[in-house]
Amino acid sequence: MPTSAEKFIQDNGAEVHDKVRIENKTLAYEGLILPKHKFSGEHIIMIKLDNGYNIGVSTENAKMTILSKAKQTDHKLTKNNKNDKLNDITILGTGGTIASFVDYKTGAVSPAITTEQLVNSVKSLEDIANINAVPLFSLASEDMNPTHWEDIARKVKEIHDDKKHGVVIGHGTDTMAYSAAALSFQLPEIAHPVVFTGSQRSPDRPSSDAHLNLAGATKTAMSDLGEVCIAMHETTNDQTVAIWRGNRSRKSHTSKRDAFTSPNDKPLGIVKENIEWKQKYKPTSKKTTLKAGFDENIGLVWSHPGLNEEDWGKLTSGKNGIVIAGTGLGHIKSELLDIVGKTAADIPVAMTSQCFSGTTNLNVYRNGRELIEKGVVEAYDMLPETALVKMMWLSKHKPNEIRELMGENIVGEISNSRKMS
Amino acid sequence: MPTSAEKFIQDNGAEVHDKVRIENKTLAYEGLILPKHKFSGEHIIMIKLDNGYNIGVSTENAKMTILSKAKQTDHKLTKNNKNDKLNDITILGTGGTIASFVDYKTGAVSPAITTEQLVNSVKSLEDIANINAVPLFSLASEDMNPTHWEDIARKVKEIHDDKKHGVVIGHGTDTMAYSAAALSFQLPEIAHPVVFTGSQRSPDRPSSDAHLNLAGATKTAMSDLGEVCIAMHETTNDQTVAIWRGNRSRKSHTSKRDAFTSPNDKPLGIVKENIEWKQKYKPTSKKTTLKAGFDENIGLVWSHPGLNEEDWGKLTSGKNGIVIAGTGLGHIKSELLDIVGKTAADIPVAMTSQCFSGTTNLNVYRNGRELIEKGVVEAYDMLPETALVKMMWLSKHKPNEIRELMGENIVGEISNSRKMS
Repeated sequence: MPTSAEKFIQDNGAEVHDKVRIENKTLAYEGLILPKHKFSGEHIIMIKLDNGYNIGVSTENAKMTILSKAKQTDHKLTKNNKNDKLNDITILGTGGTIASFVDYKTGAVSPAITTEQLVNSVKSLEDIANINAVPLFSLASEDMNPTHWEDIARKVKEIHDDKKHGVVIGHGTDTMAYSAAALSFQLPEIAHPVVFTGSQRSPDRPSSDAHLNLAGATKTAMSDLGEVCIAMHETTNDQTVAIWRGNRSRKSHTSKRDAFTSPNDKPLGIVKENIEWKQKYKPTSKKTTLKAGFDENIGLVWSHPGLNEEDWGKLTSGKNGIVIAGTGLGHIKSELLDIVGKTAADIPVAMTSQCFSGTTNLNVYRNGRELIEKGVVEAYDMLPETALVKMMWLSKHKPNEIRELMGENIVGEISNSRKMS
Repeated sequence: MPTSAEKFIQDNGAEVHDKVRIENKTLAYEGLILPKHKFSGEHIIMIKLDNGYNIGVSTENAKMTILSKAKQTDHKLTKNNKNDKLNDITILGTGGTIASFVDYKTGAVSPAITTEQLVNSVKSLEDIANINAVPLFSLASEDMNPTHWEDIARKVKEIHDDKKHGVVIGHGTDTMAYSAAALSFQLPEIAHPVVFTGSQRSPDRPSSDAHLNLAGATKTAMSDLGEVCIAMHETTNDQTVAIWRGNRSRKSHTSKRDAFTSPNDKPLGIVKENIEWKQKYKPTSKKTTLKAGFDENIGLVWSHPGLNEEDWGKLTSGKNGIVIAGTGLGHIKSELLDIVGKTAADIPVAMTSQCFSGTTNLNVYRNGRELIEKGVVEAYDMLPETALVKMMWLSKHKPNEIRELMGENIVGEISNSRKMS
C-alpha cells in the first residue's frame, strides 16, 4: 500500500496550502496542496495547479519539495462595520465556483467556505455597499433543479419584502442562465434588483474573475433595474462587467471569463466605475410579485439527422410538454411531421432553433407551416433553454393557454413575437 | 367557397412571377406570385415577399393589383462551351435553398429547378471553371439522413476517381455541418477538394448569397485543399467567402448570410479574387479513400435542469452509443452519475459541451473525474453534432475502440485531444 496522503505530507514537513513540487517517474506538478476531501483516494494528494485546475497525484514513488509555505489567510468571520453612507444589499450564496476557496464541491471533511467568509474576503465590496451575506445552499450548478429555482425565488421575495434592498445571487456558471430565466418568470415584478453572478476561476486564484464580477453585480443590485439579470465579465480584461437579461443569456464558452452573452440581445448595461446603460430596461416596481413553481416534466428534443419516430416516442412519452431545438428556422424532418403533430394535439410543443442566434420562422417553408397547422408553437428568438424553463413555469395553465403564452413575450424573453424578422 | 387561386390570378390579368399587391380587410402584402404547388390550398395564392419569405394569402375578400409584370428569364438548358483554359469541377446537387428558384420544396405540379439549370443561370461561374452539374437528390437538409451521407460520399469518390477533379456539393444549410462532418470521416483522404456550399436566400432574389457562395466554393474546389470543407459568406457583405473545416462548423444564425462559423477554429482561408489561406491545412492526397456507412442508432442527450433517471433510461434505451451535450466543461447532475456510469459500461458514452465554444475538461471537478472513471469519454473541443456523426461512423469498431477513437483527433475534428486547455 502506498503511504496515505496525510502521512506523506507530514513526512515532508508540508502543510495544506503550501506550494509544493510533487513528482514521480513520469509526472511533475507544481501547485498548492488542497485539503483532503471524502472523494479523494487514501493515498492521493490533491494539488491546485497554477492554471487553477485541481489534480490528484498518488504518493506512490512520489517526491515532494516545498516551494513556499502557505500564507496565513484570515478566514475568520469579521463583522462588517456598517457604513451609513452606503446602501445595503444581500448576497445569496447557492454554490458554484464563486463560493469555493480551495476546493470545489468538498465533502464533510473539508466544507466549502461560507458565503459570509467569501464576502468578507472581498474587501473591495466594503466601499461599495453594506453586505448582508445569506448562504442558501452550496450546489454545483449542474445540480440545480426546478425546486431550487423555487427556493431561490421565495428567498429573494422575502429579502425584498423584509430588507427592502437588492439581491446578488452567487451561482455556478453551468446552469446560471437556466436559473436566471427561472427567476425572471417567477418574479415578473421586482421592487429591487435581482442579479446573478459567478466566476469561471475560483476566488483564491490571482487571476480570478470573482472579485470584479461580485463588485459589478453589487453595483447593479443598487440600481433601479427591474429585470432579473446576469452580471459577468464583459471581456477577458479584468475591467468591465456586462449586465445581461436573465432570460436571454447563455454560457457560451466553457472556461473564458467573458463566457456569458445574449445571442439575440445587447447587454443592458456595462458596469465600470458606474453603470453605462446600453438599452431601455424595465425599472423596478413598487412590489415584488412571486409566481413560483415549475413542472419538471417537460422534455427538450434536439432535432438531428438520424432522429426517428421511435426516438420521438421515447423522448416525449409521459411528458407534459416538449420544446424542440429545431434546425435552422425551426425545422424537423418531414417523416416526423405526423407524429410531432399528434404529440402537439395532446400537449404543448414549442419550436426553437438550435442555431446560436436568430429567430424561428415557420412561415418560410412548407414543413414549418404544416407544424403550425398541427399546433406547434413558434418560440421566435427565445433560446431553447429559456423556452424549456418557461414551459415548466407555465404548467399551472391549461394546455391552450400554454400554447398561447409560449409565443408571447412575458418578461423580455422574446424580441419579435408574432412578427417575422 | 372562395375563388380558386388560378382563377383569381387569371381574373386579375396577372400571371405567375408578376409583382403584385394583394390585400384583404386585415392584411396587405407585396411580392411575386409563386407557382402553385401541391401543398397550397385551392384558394391560397403563394406570394414571395421582398424579404424572401413566402406567404399564403386566401382569395377570400382579396383584391389584387399588378405592380409589374414578370421578366422573362431564360431557364433553358444551355450547354456550356468548354473552355480549355479553365479547370473542370463537378457541382453535385442535393437540394436546399441553393437549388430552389421560385419556391422551395415544390411538389409535382411545379418541380424544383435542376442543378444544371441553376449552374447555367450562374453565368459568373463560366469564367471560373468548366462546370459539370450532377443532381443527386433534391432534399431539404432537415431530411438528410445518414444513408444520404453515404450516397454523397460514394458519388464524390466516383467523381474523384473518374473525372479527377474537385466537387462542390450544393446542400441545404440546416444540416450542412452534420453532412460535412459525415463526409470528412467517410473520406479521410481525398485526391481533390470536397466543398459544401448553400444559400440562406434563394437564388432568384437580388440579395441572394447563392452566387457568391457558388463562386467561392468553385474556386476552393480547384485548390489543393485535402480536407472536406464548407464555403459560405464570411460577412454579411457580398464580397468574401470563408472556408471552414467541415467537421468543426455550425450553422450559428438562423437567417444571416454569414451564418457559418467554426466555434473553436479559424477559417482555413478566405476566398476573394484568389484564396488567402489563414492556417495550415492538409493538402490533397494521391487517392480518395472511402470508409462509408453509419449506425444511425446513436442518441444525443442534452443535459439540463429537470433531466432525471427515468429520462436517461428512455433516451438511451436500445441505443448503441450516446453523446451527451453536458453543461460547462462537460457536466451532468450528480444524481445521474450512477446511471450514466452503468450505460457507459455497456455502450460508448462521450461527453461534449453545450457551450457554443471551448473544450470539455473532466479533470477539473469531482463529477467529471467520476465520469471518466466510469468510462465516459471526453470529446474535448469537438462539437456535439460532430461527436454524434463520428460515433455513428465509428460503429464498425468494437465498443472499446470506439471509446478510444472518440477522444482522438482523426480528421481535424479535435484540437487538443488528451490535453488540458
